[in-house]
Amino acid sequence: MTQERNIDFKKFPVAGIRLGVACAGIKKGKSTSDRSDLVLIEIAENSHTVAVFTQNAFCAAPVVISKKHLTLSSPRYLLVNTGNANAGTGEQGIDDAISCCDMVANVASVKTSEVLPFSTGVIGEYLPVSKFQKAINSAYENLSEDNWESAAKGILTTDTVVKAFTRSLNINNQTITISGIAKGSGMIRPDMATMLAYIATDAKLGQGLLQNCLLDAVNHSFNRITVDGDTSTNDSAILIATGQSGLELAKDSAELSAFQGALTEICEELAKDIVRDGEGATKLISIAVSGCKDDKEAKDVAFTVAHSPLVKTAFFASDPNWGRILAAVGRAGVTDFDLSKVNIALDDVYIVRDGGKASDYSEERGQKVMDKSDITIHIDLGRGDKEIMVWTCDFSYDYVRINAEYRT
Amino acid sequence: MTQERNIDFKKFPVAGIRLGVACAGIKKGKSTSDRSDLVLIEIAENSHTVAVFTQNAFCAAPVVISKKHLTLSSPRYLLVNTGNANAGTGEQGIDDAISCCDMVANVASVKTSEVLPFSTGVIGEYLPVSKFQKAINSAYENLSEDNWESAAKGILTTDTVVKAFTRSLNINNQTITISGIAKGSGMIRPDMATMLAYIATDAKLGQGLLQNCLLDAVNHSFNRITVDGDTSTNDSAILIATGQSGLELAKDSAELSAFQGALTEICEELAKDIVRDGEGATKLISIAVSGCKDDKEAKDVAFTVAHSPLVKTAFFASDPNWGRILAAVGRAGVTDFDLSKVNIALDDVYIVRDGGKASDYSEERGQKVMDKSDITIHIDLGRGDKEIMVWTCDFSYDYVRINAEYRT
Repeated sequence: MTQERNIDFKKFPVAGIRLGVACAGIKKGKSTSDRSDLVLIEIAENSHTVAVFTQNAFCAAPVVISKKHLTLSSPRYLLVNTGNANAGTGEQGIDDAISCCDMVANVASVKTSEVLPFSTGVIGEYLPVSKFQKAINSAYENLSEDNWESAAKGILTTDTVVKAFTRSLNINNQTITISGIAKGSGMIRPDMATMLAYIATDAKLGQGLLQNCLLDAVNHSFNRITVDGDTSTNDSAILIATGQSGLELAKDSAELSAFQGALTEICEELAKDIVRDGEGATKLISIAVSGCKDDKEAKDVAFTVAHSPLVKTAFFASDPNWGRILAAVGRAGVTDFDLSKVNIALDDVYIVRDGGKASDYSEERGQKVMDKSDITIHIDLGRGDKEIMVWTCDFSYDYVRINAEYRT
Repeated sequence: MTQERNIDFKKFPVAGIRLGVACAGIKKGKSTSDRSDLVLIEIAENSHTVAVFTQNAFCAAPVVISKKHLTLSSPRYLLVNTGNANAGTGEQGIDDAISCCDMVANVASVKTSEVLPFSTGVIGEYLPVSKFQKAINSAYENLSEDNWESAAKGILTTDTVVKAFTRSLNINNQTITISGIAKGSGMIRPDMATMLAYIATDAKLGQGLLQNCLLDAVNHSFNRITVDGDTSTNDSAILIATGQSGLELAKDSAELSAFQGALTEICEELAKDIVRDGEGATKLISIAVSGCKDDKEAKDVAFTVAHSPLVKTAFFASDPNWGRILAAVGRAGVTDFDLSKVNIALDDVYIVRDGGKASDYSEERGQKVMDKSDITIHIDLGRGDKEIMVWTCDFSYDYVRINAEYRT
């Protein structure tokens, strides 16, 4: 059941973006209220749309088609279905994805290549194409600028919370809006938790600039979260600039910086919500690694800790078992590691100072931090000025239950 | 409680090796019968001893001292304690490890540097040095060639089965014996599951040759298993050649090949037993990756699948969820991946052929394999002739329970 959150969806509308939602009957086993499983997003003409997709070599059919269509046309419609990922479905999967784009193209009188398809759900089952036409018609008919809330719900699968953020920026007495919605509760929830994110703004940006903005935001948000280290075959993040505010953001301008900051913030909030909603998660763990020689070693240390099942189960148990963090840092592959320079803290409680157990550490102080639901692990290698922040969650019985019982 | 297994320990004795066991009272919370926690292994003079240690940058104190002593002398005694890892203990940990070596040196009239210390247990607590002297005396007094069984039990911590294998080789009408014991039930069981392995033979080999034999065996066994991807700060594997059979194995000889084969087999069996006894494990999963361009990509694919929590929970649930294996292979970072050449099978049941779902696959056939407790995943990339075999276990509620409840 989706939890209700206090999000003011009245602030979300972006001029040039309309959203429509329908029930195609693809997603199974949900209560009536959660049954919407098809979302159509209409993009006004003269907009720019950019995207980043999964790095998994096994791309799902919709990813293959979306990438191709982006090279041919500027998208006018995004078609999202949940309940079936159309992944591992070979040639037929490709044909099915194109068929669905055709349906939208016919209804909306655009070219097939102006439609991008997105799917999330079970891998290895063919898309029930016959269920799409009626739902697409229905979603097209209810297209509205005000449908952000129902769209945010419609793209969810087994997520337990709606993920949506918006920011308004006042630039030179003009207001621009950036709004985003996302889904995902594992990097891949068995086969159900592809990460999908759709972000739109009424600011005006050139295609190349927009692509750089998205890449930069994704690198500081969606690429820095992990629930279980598994990457979906369907992950996609889309950024649309309709330009309808009339405010143009020029390269290297202060205005662009402000826009980039707000965009990154939205992506970061969406990403953290995905981790908080991670399979079986009870805690959000931020991992701040600093004092590194280069970006690679910062990333290696951060993700080695973030992926460690031993660290994650210790956080689930609220056990200040600092030896596990130390051991994970130690196996991250840092060369010429001088342990005597390493400091590690949980929030403001030092557990390791100069490579040894901190003299002012006590189980009681450690326990106080571990009892929180939002904890930062600070790891300083003391050998440079590179740093990184990544987010993960704890590892609970429910993770095993969700992933072992799925499909049964 | 340690399960009894049908191992014929009468075949284990190796001329030149004596073992002694004692209860020092370091290991807590065990039943009386399992209380031995200190093992002393005596190595006859003129033996050769080689070792490989953890790659974790945070080496425990006993690892630091063992490495140092190996550069100074040929070891005469190995001292193993369980219940405390003497890791994360700084300078005092080093002093404590040396103190324990001193005690053995005094009792046995050897140099301190002729003693190697090994510890496994909780990280971050100081070694209770005062408990060692009496237990060392006791272990020294009961040194015997026939004590392999009690030594195999004495090095265990939370392991549920004894891990011991022996092989005899008949070479030119002479018999040589190779015997090994090991402990470990996670690569690091919270802080309790350091992997320790002690292998001895009465064959005669030079130091360099012996080191190569151990490295080769370890690379095909202990370095190819994973329970949770975490590497202990204390992992050690030791190989001793007493030479007392009188049979010398020359470089590049057929006899040496036979010896290497038997040694690798013992290490492989010990390694597989560690995985079978993995935390909460209900299944042994062998991952055979073939058709790779080079060794690195074979290893990357194998360990990406072996570490995937989604693959491991699917095996726990006996769920033939082949999409998870496919997705894990896809994110292993293989460059220029031609999916259409990939074949994947569970035992003899193909799930993926030429990159797509195998046409002869059925849930029923997949289910039949998944219901077994010993399963091989065959993954062929179809782009070269390099291959690898690694072993992992499934991921169960008990893994979380063991790792979350430990210390509480």
